Amino acid sequence: MEKLKEYVSVKDEDHFYHQGAVELLIFNFLLILTILTIWLFKNHRFRFLHETGGAMLYGLVMGLIIRYVTKSPEVESGTVYECEKLKSGPSTLLINITNQVYEYQYKREISHHNVNGHQGNTMLQKMTFDPSIFFNILLPPIIFHAGYSLKKRHFFRNLGSILTYAFLGTAISCIVIGLIMYGFVQAMVHLGQLKQWEFHFTDCLFFGSLMSATDPVTVLAIFHELNVDTDLYTLLFGESVLNDAVAIVLTHSISIYSPKENPNAFDAAAFFQSVGNFLGIFAGSFAMGSSYAVVTALISFIHLTKFTKLCEFPMLETGLFFLLSWSAFLSAEAAGLTGIVAVLFCGVTQAHYTYNNLSADSKMRTKQLFEFMNFLAENVIFCYMGLALFTFQNHIFNPLFIFGALVAVFVARASNIYPLSFLLNLGRKQKIPRTFQHMMMFSGLRGAIAFALAIRDTDSQPKQMMFTTALLVVFFTVWVCGGGTTAMLTWLQIRSVLVGVDPDEDLKARAASQSAPNLDKNTTKAESAWLFRIWYGFDHKYLKPLLTHSGPPLTSTLPEWCDPVARLLTSPRAYGDQLKDGDTVYIINNDELTANYESSAHIAVPAQDSTASTQATGKEDVQEGDLGLGGYKLQLQQTAGQPQNSLA
Amino acid sequence: MEKLKEYVSVKDEDHFYHQGAVELLIFNFLLILTILTIWLFKNHRFRFLHETGGAMLYGLVMGLIIRYVTKSPEVESGTVYECEKLKSGPSTLLINITNQVYEYQYKREISHHNVNGHQGNTMLQKMTFDPSIFFNILLPPIIFHAGYSLKKRHFFRNLGSILTYAFLGTAISCIVIGLIMYGFVQAMVHLGQLKQWEFHFTDCLFFGSLMSATDPVTVLAIFHELNVDTDLYTLLFGESVLNDAVAIVLTHSISIYSPKENPNAFDAAAFFQSVGNFLGIFAGSFAMGSSYAVVTALISFIHLTKFTKLCEFPMLETGLFFLLSWSAFLSAEAAGLTGIVAVLFCGVTQAHYTYNNLSADSKMRTKQLFEFMNFLAENVIFCYMGLALFTFQNHIFNPLFIFGALVAVFVARASNIYPLSFLLNLGRKQKIPRTFQHMMMFSGLRGAIAFALAIRDTDSQPKQMMFTTALLVVFFTVWVCGGGTTAMLTWLQIRSVLVGVDPDEDLKARAASQSAPNLDKNTTKAESAWLFRIWYGFDHKYLKPLLTHSGPPLTSTLPEWCDPVARLLTSPRAYGDQLKDGDTVYIINNDELTANYESSAHIAVPAQDSTASTQATGKEDVQEGDLGLGGYKLQLQQTAGQPQNSLA
Repeated sequence: MEKLKEYVSVKDEDHFYHQGAVELLIFNFLLILTILTIWLFKNHRFRFLHETGGAMLYGLVMGLIIRYVTKSPEVESGTVYECEKLKSGPSTLLINITNQVYEYQYKREISHHNVNGHQGNTMLQKMTFDPSIFFNILLPPIIFHAGYSLKKRHFFRNLGSILTYAFLGTAISCIVIGLIMYGFVQAMVHLGQLKQWEFHFTDCLFFGSLMSATDPVTVLAIFHELNVDTDLYTLLFGESVLNDAVAIVLTHSISIYSPKENPNAFDAAAFFQSVGNFLGIFAGSFAMGSSYAVVTALISFIHLTKFTKLCEFPMLETGLFFLLSWSAFLSAEAAGLTGIVAVLFCGVTQAHYTYNNLSADSKMRTKQLFEFMNFLAENVIFCYMGLALFTFQNHIFNPLFIFGALVAVFVARASNIYPLSFLLNLGRKQKIPRTFQHMMMFSGLRGAIAFALAIRDTDSQPKQMMFTTALLVVFFTVWVCGGGTTAMLTWLQIRSVLVGVDPDEDLKARAASQSAPNLDKNTTKAESAWLFRIWYGFDHKYLKPLLTHSGPPLTSTLPEWCDPVARLLTSPRAYGDQLKDGDTVYIINNDELTANYESSAHIAVPAQDSTASTQATGKEDVQEGDLGLGGYKLQLQQTAGQPQNSLA
Repeated sequence: MEKLKEYVSVKDEDHFYHQGAVELLIFNFLLILTILTIWLFKNHRFRFLHETGGAMLYGLVMGLIIRYVTKSPEVESGTVYECEKLKSGPSTLLINITNQVYEYQYKREISHHNVNGHQGNTMLQKMTFDPSIFFNILLPPIIFHAGYSLKKRHFFRNLGSILTYAFLGTAISCIVIGLIMYGFVQAMVHLGQLKQWEFHFTDCLFFGSLMSATDPVTVLAIFHELNVDTDLYTLLFGESVLNDAVAIVLTHSISIYSPKENPNAFDAAAFFQSVGNFLGIFAGSFAMGSSYAVVTALISFIHLTKFTKLCEFPMLETGLFFLLSWSAFLSAEAAGLTGIVAVLFCGVTQAHYTYNNLSADSKMRTKQLFEFMNFLAENVIFCYMGLALFTFQNHIFNPLFIFGALVAVFVARASNIYPLSFLLNLGRKQKIPRTFQHMMMFSGLRGAIAFALAIRDTDSQPKQMMFTTALLVVFFTVWVCGGGTTAMLTWLQIRSVLVGVDPDEDLKARAASQSAPNLDKNTTKAESAWLFRIWYGFDHKYLKPLLTHSGPPLTSTLPEWCDPVARLLTSPRAYGDQLKDGDTVYIINNDELTANYESSAHIAVPAQDSTASTQATGKEDVQEGDLGLGGYKLQLQQTAGQPQNSLA
């Protein structure tokens, strides 16, 4: 038998018709405000508040308004109905109320302590959207764009350092934060703020892993605007991109680490299972993402060769590209892997292979589309973070925990960057300077990923405390560290280095530099040259000819007995392109590897060549401040190629 | 006291993590298949199956698989729990089940007869997404794109005819379908298939209004590909765009028409209230949409003038444009108006004013973005329609009703097109030929809007029967009429007329034609020239100078005493542009209006000029079949303008 108290609510048809419109409108309004503000700031060259910081600020104000101005129309909203006969919550509940059947959709399990008066404020409720929207809709474009706009050449040159920071650094950061937080949790237990059994060491590690995802979007935007040293940019960008992937998989692994007996004791079996899980999920996601990209490359390759007319439909090409990339994410999620990791490596691989097979128009379309989606998604997330401070209904503010987290985050960043840089410098021919290390330390902002990981699970009280704290750490780092970037750069005197905009793919620039051999030798000597060269050679000889139209024909790279297969697989265009791709061969065979790469980094003309073997330039939106329309137009014309010139 | 039967379900954490991924993946997969198919078809110039038809076909197959292959994991799913004490359904229901509180979200009210075994197949349930997603997310880009790509000059020339078809024609269609369906309903009552009180005449009219929304997307795509006569294209396109808006508002008005006593009797008060409602909602939505566009125009105008550097951030411009346009839709919905109508007129107004203020790069970006969103949304909707035939759980197939609907739809189309064309031809100097009338009759396809209107309300049995029938009518018309378009065009010998691609805005072409005065005189003489001229004069003298940089400066068009105000409001650029815009003045002052417009319609070179006073060309994706890259490239170069040429 159950007791169901009386309940009255108004539910008119109009409510159904305009469902969701108001909430979406609020977001639109916030984004419009943000854009107008950025516009004003960019015009006055204010750099102390990045668009993400602004979006967060507006979100905060709007959250405040929604919380304290809108009233809860349902008074008795915190009422809990009891039902002894139901053993578990069905996904769909049909209830007969006064002879009318209502359908209810399962939303979530909530702890008793969360059942408070705010539960019923429908406006607050609607503004708190489903975490799955973050993961399925908002994050993929951001991560994909990061992968797609990775400057591959610089990235590979610094691959060793980036991998060290991303894997080892994230692990260090996770453990350091976990340990410090465990200390603070013990203090809280002593002070009576928390019960011992509520917060295990694994919870601290969980918090450590989610807080290890850095998001220096603000810093990178300013770097790009000020043309900061490309190596520093690449180190920071590469590290943050990979570190997100590592942190996500790490968080997942820790959350499923469940020692059999005492949760505070170390269970070796469960630990190794988690490590195995980590490796398995990472590798699986990597494979999933790359294979989708390879499929896209093959599709675009096949019809470039077989149906030459098909590249005349850039809309279809763009659509296919977009859908296959998103599918990489969704397939990984559906298979129990990590979609973010899959979509990241999908982006990298797409840029490497598929991009070459796209028509000139599609190249530009995909680039602009992903740029735009990245821009929107990023600002929606930051707006939402601001909103969440007031609209989320189960915040637990614990000053000690928050203070502990801020300390832990900075200590962990320091024990990640400085020791690892020291170790790396032992092996690197071109050292990572002290100033770079300080800048990397300072750029340890927390952002969308940390927030998204924290919001995934907010059912228990420890998780709610973590969410609240993560949110405040994000606010603090974005506003303080993000706002202080320009000042920090000036103070560390990093600003002075002048580098052209994304010159790493510029054939023209490289050609120009080859005729002017007075190269600046004090640039980074690739510390991972051997790794890079092995991969590059394989890629250049076998993968590129197989998947794109560049590179030498397979007939010349495969052994003779493979000739029939090679002939079948090689694009007829590849023979013609052999000459064009010659300079890559030159690079591979040339011991003075870096000289060639670096030579392009000091051309002052902001030229871009999209027809070169690789991909989009990424943060174009922030470049425009210095580039103006000139850079764009040039690119337009170059991508347009022959047809345009003949019509002009 | 309530009886709640036992209920068991499995709800693991993983389910939460991968929520939605599988469903989205299925849609992605269907869209990828569709794109690959279109690609193949376009390559072989198959025109009997348009992409929308293909998307629908794949959706159908997938729906079949989901329905009969996936199993319902929840066995006792149709169980209804009773609760006497609850008086009404709260939006959030908290239920305590075995000492754990679960939160349930109100989904909908369902009739007793709908509580069937399928209710619990979660896969089916998830594939049936919320109708509000259609209205808030999928429809706006399609409608906006239609408005944004309307060929204004041709549209205004045929304004009288288009308005007649859209308003009078839709009303005729609605009434004719309503009457015929009422006949069939009476027959069904006689045959005992239906009870008298279940289906009123207002229900028939409701069905009539939703079935009056035509969607000739398939036909128009083929028209564009085959370069069919621009006047026929404009008539059909303009009619279908406006007719959607009319049908939506009409459906809304009829659904709220509630005569006090006998629902079959005519209640004059209620009728006039509905008519008033119709006019109010239409005018309100129109005003809402246009004002958002004017605000956008003003914002982009202000910073073009005041902060000249701001147009250097095309990403922000595009973002603002996108968000404000979407806000027009959402605001209208939130205010109880019709978002679709608002977003349609917003699109038209944006194209007319804002487009001129955008930077060259933003012009292209917005165009491509809306094109892409339109493409995706359209195919998602058609996929979903295919899916819905098998995944929707409460279909009611009534052969008599379905047959009646097919008859009614064709009779109504005939009694719309032929009598109105006859009347219009009395007034038009250039008649609408018989062949055009047959083609318009044949192009009365039903599509996304009819479906979306029908799916909004599927609670009662009559509404479910209407939904099922509407779906089948969409299938029939898209496949049969859409597939037969090419054959029909050949049979009616309309194909022969050759017209350049979207030449209506081409200044160059016009200039060329002015020097070559042998104009083809047998083109449409603007029957609405007087209306057009009044509007055009006002627009040209006051609105354009106020909102854009084209047109004469306000100082020359406003009376002398307004000079101080005029000086303040006029863009400094406008003075410089006076010469360029001179030809428009010439047009206004010239009695031989049409000659000038028409002159541009017969240039064979597919040239486009985006710097001209107006807007995007719309169905570019289908043009490419004939245009190739040439058309695109030319446009790229022209939009790029000076900076590009100087860098080239």
